[in-house]
Amino acid sequence: MNIEIITIGDELLIGQVVDTNSAWISSKMSNAGFDVTYITSIKDRKEAIYNAVEDGFERADILLLTGGNGPTKDDITKNTLCKFFDEELIFDNEVLKNIETQFKEKKIEINELTRNQAYVPQKSTVIQNRVGTAPILWFEKDGKILISMPGVPFEMRWAMNEEIIPRLTKRFQTKRFLKEVFYTHGITESGLAIHLNNFEEQLPSEFGLAYLPGGGVIRLRLSVKGDEHADEMNKQANKLKTLLGDYLLAESDDPLQQILGNTLKDNGMTISLAESCSGGYIAHLLTNIAGSSAYFLGGVVSYSNSAKMNLLNVKQTTLDTHGAVSQQAVEEMAKGAIDAFGSDCAIAVSGIAGPDGGTEEKPVGTVWICTICKNKMVSREYSFGKSRENNKRRSAVMAMVQMLRCMA
Amino acid sequence: MNIEIITIGDELLIGQVVDTNSAWISSKMSNAGFDVTYITSIKDRKEAIYNAVEDGFERADILLLTGGNGPTKDDITKNTLCKFFDEELIFDNEVLKNIETQFKEKKIEINELTRNQAYVPQKSTVIQNRVGTAPILWFEKDGKILISMPGVPFEMRWAMNEEIIPRLTKRFQTKRFLKEVFYTHGITESGLAIHLNNFEEQLPSEFGLAYLPGGGVIRLRLSVKGDEHADEMNKQANKLKTLLGDYLLAESDDPLQQILGNTLKDNGMTISLAESCSGGYIAHLLTNIAGSSAYFLGGVVSYSNSAKMNLLNVKQTTLDTHGAVSQQAVEEMAKGAIDAFGSDCAIAVSGIAGPDGGTEEKPVGTVWICTICKNKMVSREYSFGKSRENNKRRSAVMAMVQMLRCMA
Repeated sequence: MNIEIITIGDELLIGQVVDTNSAWISSKMSNAGFDVTYITSIKDRKEAIYNAVEDGFERADILLLTGGNGPTKDDITKNTLCKFFDEELIFDNEVLKNIETQFKEKKIEINELTRNQAYVPQKSTVIQNRVGTAPILWFEKDGKILISMPGVPFEMRWAMNEEIIPRLTKRFQTKRFLKEVFYTHGITESGLAIHLNNFEEQLPSEFGLAYLPGGGVIRLRLSVKGDEHADEMNKQANKLKTLLGDYLLAESDDPLQQILGNTLKDNGMTISLAESCSGGYIAHLLTNIAGSSAYFLGGVVSYSNSAKMNLLNVKQTTLDTHGAVSQQAVEEMAKGAIDAFGSDCAIAVSGIAGPDGGTEEKPVGTVWICTICKNKMVSREYSFGKSRENNKRRSAVMAMVQMLRCMA
Repeated sequence: MNIEIITIGDELLIGQVVDTNSAWISSKMSNAGFDVTYITSIKDRKEAIYNAVEDGFERADILLLTGGNGPTKDDITKNTLCKFFDEELIFDNEVLKNIETQFKEKKIEINELTRNQAYVPQKSTVIQNRVGTAPILWFEKDGKILISMPGVPFEMRWAMNEEIIPRLTKRFQTKRFLKEVFYTHGITESGLAIHLNNFEEQLPSEFGLAYLPGGGVIRLRLSVKGDEHADEMNKQANKLKTLLGDYLLAESDDPLQQILGNTLKDNGMTISLAESCSGGYIAHLLTNIAGSSAYFLGGVVSYSNSAKMNLLNVKQTTLDTHGAVSQQAVEEMAKGAIDAFGSDCAIAVSGIAGPDGGTEEKPVGTVWICTICKNKMVSREYSFGKSRENNKRRSAVMAMVQMLRCMA
């Protein structure tokens, strides 16, 4: 069964908004055993929507739409879908009641545009949106299904989790998607491909092995569909683990910050941060994890030399002699964080993010990372590259990798 | 002239990677006056690629492809495109030389898979990739153009900026896309739509007005194509500004963190942060801006009470009497940041991000923000919602909004 996603919105086609909905939906569907084969982003236009739906149904059985609805959008999507499915719009008092309840909670008056959201197709299934005002619409025709959801990520996620995935799973009983994900580090993508050449050749044809590089680590995803392959999956995963040896960093599909958080929790340890060039990005990643306050005590973003000295006790002579981007400075920063927060572990990062500030000796992309875990301290110099964004991202990823290695 | 983007990669269809390339390309193309009308994401499969290219050319004149190339990908994209354009692959020594130069710099040996990237279509234009190993391929047939780029964002961006956009602009001399973007705050999307109803009705048909809501602010984009409309654009933009009145926060297409940074720079002021529930996200956003070290002195991510007390001088009695999420605590945090960093301005944020930690009196989503600008201090309570991710995001956006209002 093929499933396609269509995301609607002019903002996507001029690049003012990144389409994060598609990846989120794909990930959820894939974990539920459904196969997303195509993603399309189109403009808020009748013709574009009609054609995309028509083309989509030529390939797929189920279309998941997001966006193109909402009070100011003139309901182009709703009207176009009604035309496609040959439906009439009628006013639905239950939808209005749902909107009224939400507006009462927020103490806002309902205006006419919002009230219009209660117009829904007469024959299709209307699913109440409990976290927003645009109802979720479920159309069916000739064995094909189209589900139209709001584009607001929070509302779409609620709809998928609470309504769409449970209904689809119940109805289609699809095969489960089995996967094992391995974080690897210390080898290039092509080096890894050569290293795993024989493994890939002996892999049964139902299995897939995907390389997912990013930020200096490569995730390997071994996958297969159907519980009947569970034993073989186990065997192959063990074979792969052995082959990876020291390249293996972690066996998990979680993001690195979650893996680090779990490791800290499992060891009953706390962590703090001293961030210079990563600029708070590591703190942001760690605190994205619910419950992180159990092990993350805090951090200092020491973007100025005075902050390094006043808050982290970095010595003036260290900065004068070695500079802020040096082994000495980053080690004093890490020790300063341990002292300031009273944590068991600490990460300190200092580097030249760019685009300016580079020198012959320390070009843009030079980053020093120090990790402390109890009595163990590791310091390493990295050279990432010329992109500021990339340097922040790679600093954060490598800081977490180095911390995990330091704790191992 | 219609332009479509096709992004290739299994990782996109299972949601392990968010397709940020499409938004970036769309934004750049739109700013250069080109119209992206369709975005498709497909799997790394011969048939999927062939069909997507065939379908794309039925609608569009130019197709921009990213991904599906690289040493481990078995060059499915390259082979499929050669089939589509009826081309043969030949070994190109210049491409090899380019790869060799880069590998020498990084002190890595070239392996066979990487060497294979020097196989390129015989007749098409090969553009050297100076920041990676996969060459950029430019195919033409029957007045249609297809450009295949690497999927690595840094390499794709380099290719677009340095090679693709200059070549397309030179050749097609398109009309310039004029736009004015206004940040508004303090009114709902539907409220704004009603407020601007008459304005939209009088707007000449060549003009467009888009609503781009996010994080508690709504960006309004007024746009038109072609320099001949510049005078009218000016007139309409002024009319809109007057209508927006106090709802207008800033007139700019930059992200909020850039607007805040520019305002600080223009006023010769510095800023520091005391972040609790936003967890370093504001620091991350501020330091994403190149040159932010000129005004951003640093921040404390005070995720524990002891960090609030030790680093920001928040009083034990304040935490005991009012709690960490209170006007009193957030004001002491902001003052503590001013003292610790010696900055002119400070933002302090403390709230309950969720999913746990909420109470009857202070439910998840309750956030206090304090902003100080020289002698002016403003504190406000917000109630955002139930999503942790959203609470961090809205805390950051509202903190920057409140700071901008505080400085005005």
